Amino acid sequence: MARTWKIGVAGLGTVGGGLLEFLEARPDFAPQGGRAVVSGVSARSRSRPRTTDISKFAWFDDPVELAKSPETDIFVELIGGSDGPAKAAVEAALKLRKPVVTANKALIAEHGAELAALAESHNVPLLFEAAVMGGTPAVKILREALVGDEIVSVAGILNGTCNYIVSEMEANERDFADVLAEAQAKGYAEADPTMDVGGFDAAHKITILSALAFGCAPNYAAAEIEGVDNVGLLDIQLAKALGYRIRLTASAVRTSDGVSVRVHPTLCPLSHPLAQTVGPTNALFIQGTRIARIFLQGPGAGAGPTAAAAAADIADVMTGAVRPVFQAPAASLRAPAAIDASRHLGEVYMRLMVKDEPGVLAAVTETLAEEGVSIDSFLQRPVEDGGAVPIVLTTHEIAESAVAKAAAKLAALPEVLEPPRIIRIARA
Amino acid sequence: MARTWKIGVAGLGTVGGGLLEFLEARPDFAPQGGRAVVSGVSARSRSRPRTTDISKFAWFDDPVELAKSPETDIFVELIGGSDGPAKAAVEAALKLRKPVVTANKALIAEHGAELAALAESHNVPLLFEAAVMGGTPAVKILREALVGDEIVSVAGILNGTCNYIVSEMEANERDFADVLAEAQAKGYAEADPTMDVGGFDAAHKITILSALAFGCAPNYAAAEIEGVDNVGLLDIQLAKALGYRIRLTASAVRTSDGVSVRVHPTLCPLSHPLAQTVGPTNALFIQGTRIARIFLQGPGAGAGPTAAAAAADIADVMTGAVRPVFQAPAASLRAPAAIDASRHLGEVYMRLMVKDEPGVLAAVTETLAEEGVSIDSFLQRPVEDGGAVPIVLTTHEIAESAVAKAAAKLAALPEVLEPPRIIRIARA
Repeated sequence: MARTWKIGVAGLGTVGGGLLEFLEARPDFAPQGGRAVVSGVSARSRSRPRTTDISKFAWFDDPVELAKSPETDIFVELIGGSDGPAKAAVEAALKLRKPVVTANKALIAEHGAELAALAESHNVPLLFEAAVMGGTPAVKILREALVGDEIVSVAGILNGTCNYIVSEMEANERDFADVLAEAQAKGYAEADPTMDVGGFDAAHKITILSALAFGCAPNYAAAEIEGVDNVGLLDIQLAKALGYRIRLTASAVRTSDGVSVRVHPTLCPLSHPLAQTVGPTNALFIQGTRIARIFLQGPGAGAGPTAAAAAADIADVMTGAVRPVFQAPAASLRAPAAIDASRHLGEVYMRLMVKDEPGVLAAVTETLAEEGVSIDSFLQRPVEDGGAVPIVLTTHEIAESAVAKAAAKLAALPEVLEPPRIIRIARA
Repeated sequence: MARTWKIGVAGLGTVGGGLLEFLEARPDFAPQGGRAVVSGVSARSRSRPRTTDISKFAWFDDPVELAKSPETDIFVELIGGSDGPAKAAVEAALKLRKPVVTANKALIAEHGAELAALAESHNVPLLFEAAVMGGTPAVKILREALVGDEIVSVAGILNGTCNYIVSEMEANERDFADVLAEAQAKGYAEADPTMDVGGFDAAHKITILSALAFGCAPNYAAAEIEGVDNVGLLDIQLAKALGYRIRLTASAVRTSDGVSVRVHPTLCPLSHPLAQTVGPTNALFIQGTRIARIFLQGPGAGAGPTAAAAAADIADVMTGAVRPVFQAPAASLRAPAAIDASRHLGEVYMRLMVKDEPGVLAAVTETLAEEGVSIDSFLQRPVEDGGAVPIVLTTHEIAESAVAKAAAKLAALPEVLEPPRIIRIARA
């Protein structure tokens, strides 16, 4: 006799709505048999118009009570936020040995080690496929499919809103603010876009992937984060003239010194798969010592893909398998040593705004030479308004600390009108 | 106390050697704990030089005896071949309730339904991640990660040898036979290359993926198979002139009429991710009603990736989870209705070799018009040797049956010197 699993769903936004619709249409979707039936729900507003009639489910004002309800076998947390009711409800469920499925990247990135310990000490799964890359199963791949390898890096595009914005800025030569306002109007971006455009959402996601890839504790506090909010149309245009597209990339790299987790704008050569990832699509490279390199690309968000990811987690719970939350038992999870950012090596793009007068180029190139910055390409654009002249250069591989030093020196030159804009260039 | 799992490995070629090395170095690799230790091995030759000293393992001349040995907890089958000792040994293991991990695509594609029934009736896993796309986890993704969706198609490049050959032919303007001979000398292609270049290996793999994607019985017999052995340098060059690269694609598509499983050369626009998949790399698109489209790319073969895939399967066995082999219980697996090939619609490339004389073009275009074949682009190349002139055209979307009829009529024209070469064009 196949078991029926009673699902409590807290948070009935886009993803929650998609999940209710799915479970209503296909309660018997799990290939191994058994049924998954929504028993209770919780959300901020009971009366808001929804695509599914929720009056047939038990209603809970407090998600913690839904988690604790004897009618909840699996608790699905789609509330969001790293603390507050989401965390309280997840903890309540785990303490009662109830499996938890969540799409909450902030919660897992910021409290993952603690929650993993709680889940594992109660021997229940804590799954979060929907937290990263929507319906593209990056989490399962890293947690289960690549355990026969040692992963050395994961890197890609993890925020669809930012990728939509930079794609649109480039394609139609529009300003950041203009595209953002449109994205907000269309519902692609939140009313407060900080989490997305500031890079924090991508940082949550890459923090989670790094923990899965390297078997370490998620260490969001150590992530270096720079968003797309400072990426101007001028840089997008200049980058294009040099053969690049700007993408907000997230990367986690393990070396013998530790782990670096970073989110920042990056110039990707036009032929690079990340440059060719346009619109709200997400993409990820996984590099391992045995598998070489795997590339994954797919929708990063949306009700359909994200609800499908949460449903797959529910089916996983129903198999009865319990694995470590982060590819190593919680008791052995350590926060990795962060790699000193200044020691990073790479090529960079540098854009200066200088006075339109003789001798400027000489002053700039001399300063760069003094700091040992070797130039790979150089572009000066004609002035349009008789004011500041943009000059842009790309360097050969160099320590980021040396670039920072050169930039500080350049900023101090009287001919240089604003601090140089520096953007890293992707390795081929 | 963590359990030790004794692994019997049958077949010690590239993948088997890679797996022995891995388990020797990391017996405790499974994140959930437990050890995986090789207990016994079997291969055709005991004395062949190997990278791992096998004298410490129990030796079995007969893989069936290794499968049956009380010292074998998990049986790993890396012998290959759809019948014979591989099948006998897998059956012997399953009947004794021993989990089986295999890289044998021929076995699973040709006897998958029968073996799934055997595995499920004994409640043991039968896993084969290493059978498709090497270290790129297409099998796990379809079996586990996308169960919250309805998959409508899987399509891509599944044979690295063929992709290496067509990539190399195009890049260096070399003949098929020349590149194949080099690939054989380097060990990229088998001494008998039929399985690869004839498209049969890709057909085995897409048959397996179709069963996983659609929850149906693998139906290798119904696959339409055309290899790359008829792809000439001339077609590669002409396709390139028109903005395409030729790839051996494998696809499985589900419609309301049934399932079509096909392997054939395909013209892919230069900007298409499959055109940009070069060398021995594999790639796969998965299209679902909820997830939209996911793209996966990675190494399709090699000791490292394939051994890593087999190791991940071993770790899965060690979790104790048992799922249906093909995403639906074996008892409910049905061979899908095959879609009548002549009803396929698509654009095609047609290359004719015609006499260099007046009126030929008129005769050809008139015949095409009579059969309702609408031309999208047309290319005639100057004659070099005063003999046959290649003319090539691409069509608008049309039924393949109409193309076949037009081709037969063209072949009968006195001006047409050989049967037209027809290659399908990928949808964008």
